Amino acid sequence: MMASGADSRYTQQRLGQGSSIVDLFERANLTTDLSAVEQLLIERSQSRSALITAASIHTVRSGGKRLRAAMALLSAQLGNYQLAHVIHAAASAELIHAASLVHDDLVDQAARRRGRVTVHTCWDNDVALMVGDYLFALAAAEMSLSPDPRIITFYAQAVQTIVEGELSPVTAVEPVETALRQYFYKTGAKTAVLFEAACKAGMAAGSGSDAQIVALGSYGFDVGVAFQIVDDVLDFTGDEGTLGKPAGNDLRQGTITLPLIYALKATGSPRLRAIIEQSDPDDAEVESSIAEVLAAGGADEAMDEARRYITQAIGHLSGFPASPAQRTLIDLAQFVVNRES
Amino acid sequence: MMASGADSRYTQQRLGQGSSIVDLFERANLTTDLSAVEQLLIERSQSRSALITAASIHTVRSGGKRLRAAMALLSAQLGNYQLAHVIHAAASAELIHAASLVHDDLVDQAARRRGRVTVHTCWDNDVALMVGDYLFALAAAEMSLSPDPRIITFYAQAVQTIVEGELSPVTAVEPVETALRQYFYKTGAKTAVLFEAACKAGMAAGSGSDAQIVALGSYGFDVGVAFQIVDDVLDFTGDEGTLGKPAGNDLRQGTITLPLIYALKATGSPRLRAIIEQSDPDDAEVESSIAEVLAAGGADEAMDEARRYITQAIGHLSGFPASPAQRTLIDLAQFVVNRES
Repeated sequence: MMASGADSRYTQQRLGQGSSIVDLFERANLTTDLSAVEQLLIERSQSRSALITAASIHTVRSGGKRLRAAMALLSAQLGNYQLAHVIHAAASAELIHAASLVHDDLVDQAARRRGRVTVHTCWDNDVALMVGDYLFALAAAEMSLSPDPRIITFYAQAVQTIVEGELSPVTAVEPVETALRQYFYKTGAKTAVLFEAACKAGMAAGSGSDAQIVALGSYGFDVGVAFQIVDDVLDFTGDEGTLGKPAGNDLRQGTITLPLIYALKATGSPRLRAIIEQSDPDDAEVESSIAEVLAAGGADEAMDEARRYITQAIGHLSGFPASPAQRTLIDLAQFVVNRES
Repeated sequence: MMASGADSRYTQQRLGQGSSIVDLFERANLTTDLSAVEQLLIERSQSRSALITAASIHTVRSGGKRLRAAMALLSAQLGNYQLAHVIHAAASAELIHAASLVHDDLVDQAARRRGRVTVHTCWDNDVALMVGDYLFALAAAEMSLSPDPRIITFYAQAVQTIVEGELSPVTAVEPVETALRQYFYKTGAKTAVLFEAACKAGMAAGSGSDAQIVALGSYGFDVGVAFQIVDDVLDFTGDEGTLGKPAGNDLRQGTITLPLIYALKATGSPRLRAIIEQSDPDDAEVESSIAEVLAAGGADEAMDEARRYITQAIGHLSGFPASPAQRTLIDLAQFVVNRES
């Protein structure tokens, strides 16, 4: 049982605030294989259209930490690992992620993502629409190169669920039970299922058993929920320097997330209830609402919830014998709740 | 050699103006199998989200003549036909077609398609964006059920090319050589490659040889180019009753198509050169420009070109022994240039 309390605490110490994901990947000897995935993503972005090539590379290069690819690789390492067998599954996860971010930013009309201008801002809405489609098509081509046809099913179903999640907003902060149910449905659908699919695809590429694929899927799903909760918390606790976008974005856009729901549950504050209805709150209103959510413990309670998901995620790995890959998956889960951006 | 001149003339007589595609499918005993495809499309459109279900079914039901599905089925019938082997490939073509129409209508902000309101008009832009993604994901799931992994590659590459075509406009009516090159590139990419992929997928599902798959692909591509040319001609010669959208749409939107290019080549008319630059021409200007294009023989010359493509398409079938399916593929090609909507 690697996922014991002692282990979790050890990992948490080792990977305290500020520990970098790059260090984690290096310690896990994952850097070379992740570079191969990166290389593949850039190669695949070459189109006959110079415009699509430029916009695809712009998107793929804004790709963040490659958590989904790393999880696919590590999941495969729990079984029979061959990079050639899992690289397409790992790249597919990142291509789907890139595609859905481009379309998500288009829906939100977000100007920036991770400090870079978004595709529809740098070019226009039509280009963003088409580049998203292009990246989805690249993903479909990529996953068809995987040795296991189930991998396509995992990803195709994930994309369907992501779309369902995208169109399922949290409609009101109260009643709290409804808001929580909607929040967790949306978070699972929009974010967690792609982590789940990446882990299942990796485990399948590593010739895992059905039970092992299910276990890895549950690990990925729970890590994904925690990841999204932390994202939503960082929108209250982070700053523009680390986030690459202004804090308070969700409040400005009227997006109801977990810290706000918990803060309202604790205080019933009419001001918090009002800000979410307001069409274009000014900076001072947003800042004082952020302060109110933090003072009410909304962010802390959300982080507690994220940590519960991480503990649960790590529990799904308990059936596997101790190994460097299993340890790294535990570390990765811990990283998700300890990250600052 | 089924594709002889005598045969073509016979078919052309039999399928003169007004002959219906429904009759053609019935004579070919294709109706039951096409209904099974239709049924599958409706089943697949069921989502956990009532909104997505409604918008998907709206889209799938506006699906037109099911030419691409029919071509996939008929291509398979040239080989070893089993509906269970080809139905997923046939449905995939229609799902990709539906997805790309939803996104195409969004780019064009078209209010109607085949007489039905478009998804972004009936709901909104975000729903159209997401439903398109959903239908693409359904297509990916569907094609993964096909027995031959090459089918996924055919379709995934087709979607990439469709996107490239969508972002490659005909930039100017002159010089004519450039305009023609751009027009045929765009037409091939945006329309013909999906017909090509459907035929290749069908032939692969029918256990065709590589050479047979290539031949069917060429047939599909040429039929697809002709199909798009006829579409562009109908925008000059059709009326709202048969088209389900107002004629002259392309001129209004500044879209340069073959009849206009040929008319300008013939007359060098400054008025035609001007209308395409105009941002919002009024109905009288559009009508007189349509009349000018028709008088200059632009539509007739485009139809001649479409018929040349159809002859070439039928030529690609010449290596196959005579069979009811081969005959129907010839009839279908003829239908494409004889249709009125």
